[in-house]
Amino acid sequence: MSEIPMTIPDLHAAYARGVTPGEVIRQVYARLAQVDDPGIFLSMPTEDAARAEAEALGPFDPARPLWGIPFAVKDNIDVAGHPTTAACPAFAYTLTEDAFVVARLRAAGAIFVGKTNLDQFATGLVGVRTPYGAPRNAIDPLIVPGGSSAGSAVAVGHGIVPLALGTDTAGSGRVPAALNNIVGLKPTLGALSATGVVPACRSIETISVFAMTVRDAYAAYRVCSAFDPADAFARDIPAPDLAAPAPAPVIGIPGAGSIRFFGDDVQAEAFAAAVDLLRGQGAVVREVDFTPLYAVADMLYDGAWVAERYTVIEDLLKTDPEAILPVTRQIIGKAESLSAADAFRGIYRLKELARAAAPLLADLDMLCVPTIPRFYSVADLEADPITPNSNLGTYTNFVNLLDMCALAVPTPARGDGRPGSVTLLARAGQDAALAALALTLEAAGDRRLGATGWPHDAGPPLPPAPADRLTLAVCGAHMTGLPLNHQLLDRGGKFVRPARTTDAYRFYALAGGPPARPGLVRGAPGSGAPVALELWSLPLAEVGSFLAGIPAPLGIGTLELEDGATVQGFLCEATATQGATDITHLANWRSYVTTVPA
Amino acid sequence: MSEIPMTIPDLHAAYARGVTPGEVIRQVYARLAQVDDPGIFLSMPTEDAARAEAEALGPFDPARPLWGIPFAVKDNIDVAGHPTTAACPAFAYTLTEDAFVVARLRAAGAIFVGKTNLDQFATGLVGVRTPYGAPRNAIDPLIVPGGSSAGSAVAVGHGIVPLALGTDTAGSGRVPAALNNIVGLKPTLGALSATGVVPACRSIETISVFAMTVRDAYAAYRVCSAFDPADAFARDIPAPDLAAPAPAPVIGIPGAGSIRFFGDDVQAEAFAAAVDLLRGQGAVVREVDFTPLYAVADMLYDGAWVAERYTVIEDLLKTDPEAILPVTRQIIGKAESLSAADAFRGIYRLKELARAAAPLLADLDMLCVPTIPRFYSVADLEADPITPNSNLGTYTNFVNLLDMCALAVPTPARGDGRPGSVTLLARAGQDAALAALALTLEAAGDRRLGATGWPHDAGPPLPPAPADRLTLAVCGAHMTGLPLNHQLLDRGGKFVRPARTTDAYRFYALAGGPPARPGLVRGAPGSGAPVALELWSLPLAEVGSFLAGIPAPLGIGTLELEDGATVQGFLCEATATQGATDITHLANWRSYVTTVPA
Repeated sequence: MSEIPMTIPDLHAAYARGVTPGEVIRQVYARLAQVDDPGIFLSMPTEDAARAEAEALGPFDPARPLWGIPFAVKDNIDVAGHPTTAACPAFAYTLTEDAFVVARLRAAGAIFVGKTNLDQFATGLVGVRTPYGAPRNAIDPLIVPGGSSAGSAVAVGHGIVPLALGTDTAGSGRVPAALNNIVGLKPTLGALSATGVVPACRSIETISVFAMTVRDAYAAYRVCSAFDPADAFARDIPAPDLAAPAPAPVIGIPGAGSIRFFGDDVQAEAFAAAVDLLRGQGAVVREVDFTPLYAVADMLYDGAWVAERYTVIEDLLKTDPEAILPVTRQIIGKAESLSAADAFRGIYRLKELARAAAPLLADLDMLCVPTIPRFYSVADLEADPITPNSNLGTYTNFVNLLDMCALAVPTPARGDGRPGSVTLLARAGQDAALAALALTLEAAGDRRLGATGWPHDAGPPLPPAPADRLTLAVCGAHMTGLPLNHQLLDRGGKFVRPARTTDAYRFYALAGGPPARPGLVRGAPGSGAPVALELWSLPLAEVGSFLAGIPAPLGIGTLELEDGATVQGFLCEATATQGATDITHLANWRSYVTTVPA
Repeated sequence: MSEIPMTIPDLHAAYARGVTPGEVIRQVYARLAQVDDPGIFLSMPTEDAARAEAEALGPFDPARPLWGIPFAVKDNIDVAGHPTTAACPAFAYTLTEDAFVVARLRAAGAIFVGKTNLDQFATGLVGVRTPYGAPRNAIDPLIVPGGSSAGSAVAVGHGIVPLALGTDTAGSGRVPAALNNIVGLKPTLGALSATGVVPACRSIETISVFAMTVRDAYAAYRVCSAFDPADAFARDIPAPDLAAPAPAPVIGIPGAGSIRFFGDDVQAEAFAAAVDLLRGQGAVVREVDFTPLYAVADMLYDGAWVAERYTVIEDLLKTDPEAILPVTRQIIGKAESLSAADAFRGIYRLKELARAAAPLLADLDMLCVPTIPRFYSVADLEADPITPNSNLGTYTNFVNLLDMCALAVPTPARGDGRPGSVTLLARAGQDAALAALALTLEAAGDRRLGATGWPHDAGPPLPPAPADRLTLAVCGAHMTGLPLNHQLLDRGGKFVRPARTTDAYRFYALAGGPPARPGLVRGAPGSGAPVALELWSLPLAEVGSFLAGIPAPLGIGTLELEDGATVQGFLCEATATQGATDITHLANWRSYVTTVPA
């Protein structure tokens, strides 16, 4: 068996060719052996056990969207029978139940292959704050792997597994994606259940998904996504099918006065090139002053939220402080001097900062930021364990505090060969919109998957989005400036264009009124005249109240236009034209109403 | 001038008769003198100053809905030029700007006449925790006035003013309404700007409105309601015109196992009678276990939220603790022992309790509770300053923590003559729905306004609510069990009833398909047959996508039913029946499809 690229379509194609899940598991373990990095996984099933689980899946089942897909799990998420360490041996415990999300992956046919290393208690963006020995960056061992979901990102980056779970408070699901040339999907808070997760900051964190491609990340996200009433912070966030993004999205980027690269000019160039790709796809790009967002970001460690981390390790800090890494203890220990009043003051300050930031974001569909402002080496971290970590969070720290969703997506490699990555950000619940735009963006440039040589296959195009407006032909008092036109305007109606029917229509002025009303009735081709119409578009949600107000003998049917198109529009019951005035020769309501007194 | 009842309609009628605003102000001050309770107001403009402001309003302006309406303001809300004390002399300050909401009242033509007494720092539900001497209950001086908005409620209860602002965290806008036989409207959190308010618990409080009638309270609420970007906790909550409540609302009440009256059997009887009034108006009443709601209520003073109060008075507590009442200091001082970690643990616990309570509330339109479980005398409070206060909050303390809106409405007097009161509760944003139901409830029994002898005038009936569903007649494949029925079900369609057209309709099986499609075409009366229909109702918002999928030659027009009604439904263009099979003799699509192979 030649090596199969670790994407869901490639694996499913292999299964269709007769490859077995057990053979894929063998590849997972062989690739891990080849990579030879003992820092990636903290525990694994034996290869035999994993293969047995894989073979127990039975025949391929198309109803299980992740059938035969191996996955790894960050070691602050429970997997039945495996210890959960949060990278702190003294904290470890073993349960007999999977975390909610792990159970959903398994139910969808995915195969668990290991728990991955992390910055202890998910506190860090670097991936080296672990007593187990840090994993090496998949692209370049000199740079940091990124964290806190280090092992998960590196495992995917090497193509050991196509999917891995991380968690994300400050950027732990995005920063390591950027550093390992993979996708990091950071869902809306509450979309994925936190049942079975060791929290970092419970009120502002989420499980995240790493994958080689946006399509795979979103597929796994959809599987994981289900409202879990046992998680008090869970929200019911829709995870619809992906559809093509709306044309010309308005995307904010950090303005020249507030963009930060900390001296990494190559990163600045790579970001500018990625923004050009967005522009090339029709995006309207606007520069935004990021100062208010950085002020929000500062709240994460300088504000009260570090006390959330403290609630998790308070007992351990008191009974066995040496069990916790000094840097972790230093960061979380700050909570000891914070009062409940400080916590509420922090909440007030965040509310005020969020309000101040709201006008910046109001007219934008999304933001696009560099996922990381610059790269740092492992040596940089050894010299200063704090500053590089803080700087890596420049474009990630504010996101959960502002209740936004995020998707880190690889862009073409930088001039120096290091991976390019931008993150798209949007308000809560826009996860599918982010994925759709990220999918078109990742397809825009040539790239390889993670640290592998596997090319990126964009796959089939997304289907068009379902319309959210209805185009409606009007031929009488609803036309521009006439007495009922306000019924369209009041409902958000927009004028589209003038049009004419085919010559199959006869046109009448009905008895009664005011307002005077027209009757348009289709007959045989050539039996009438091309009648003047106006096409208006109405939001779909407003059509019902509009329709409810249409009196007999009028109704909405389908009109044939002179140009061959068809469109919904006003028609009249044929029987009602008895006694009406035939104005087919005018073929235009405006001509009729200007010739007749109202 | 004979005394004018203090309601907006009565005052506006007086103005229409030629009474001047200055004369009304004279009545306000005369009535206050007559009541002779120096505990109601902490500061007032001189009568001359208030009359001058009143006369400066100019001629009656119907565009100003509160033109000439006097109002009082709880003394934790800023009024330009008057000290804001929060009932703590050492805390007092005087600004030159009105609070946002006060400015809106004035812009609507209302006339400020004084700042009212309160439980210090709005901490209490009794109204006697003030160094200025408590106001006396308007109904019976032996019972407590209720708080913390004591002076505002008593001023309205006496008919001194028709409107007064309070604030409400734990029930301060509801409990005193019940004790003084008036209406207390506690809006959705964030609906009214907190700019210019001395906060108690900033994250879970709101300005509230006292009035004699629900209509007046809602009118003032609407005037006050506008999104204020300067208040970080402000939300954009709609305040629509009131419309008649939906028939048969489902209303939860405390179940027998969890209802609490602390021995006040008369209150139990009064509540049962009020619930019977609701039932008599068509409400579906369900008993609910209130245990989870009481658990939420316990968080308010036992949880971390007391630290919000602490943030307000921290400086004063440190520099001049004796300036604060001992009971207030005792309650708020508890925050000193709470850490930021405790605050987040409290937030977690609240989230969990709210989640546990959600299933209880999910199928209900509203809750109805006794506003207070029992009455307490001033002597009771002197004997025990804490327990009566806690008990008074039984049905109010959980409300803001669960982000519900509330309206306390008088019900017929109890058997012993004391005022009856229930509070309607609903989820955030349902303020108008609460007011509409409260308005019908207050009209159901005979009652007097506050402590006055003025009768309650129910005023004109509310207009019917606009429909949110469209009834649609279907005659073919959309009928129950037929191939396109799912298009209705998928959109939340509900079967209403079978029906038949008049005999003016001819009925066809159109060429083409599958699915086979019917054509219904109106002609002259008697020219066809009564055709079998099914009436379905669709949410208005779903009609657009349904209509978009209807192909030519079908459309939606108006159908005449055998029973004389008309309804929107499927029609067919007459021209399209050429070549179709006339099935008018069957007059029923089901008969046709069972006789013809699909």
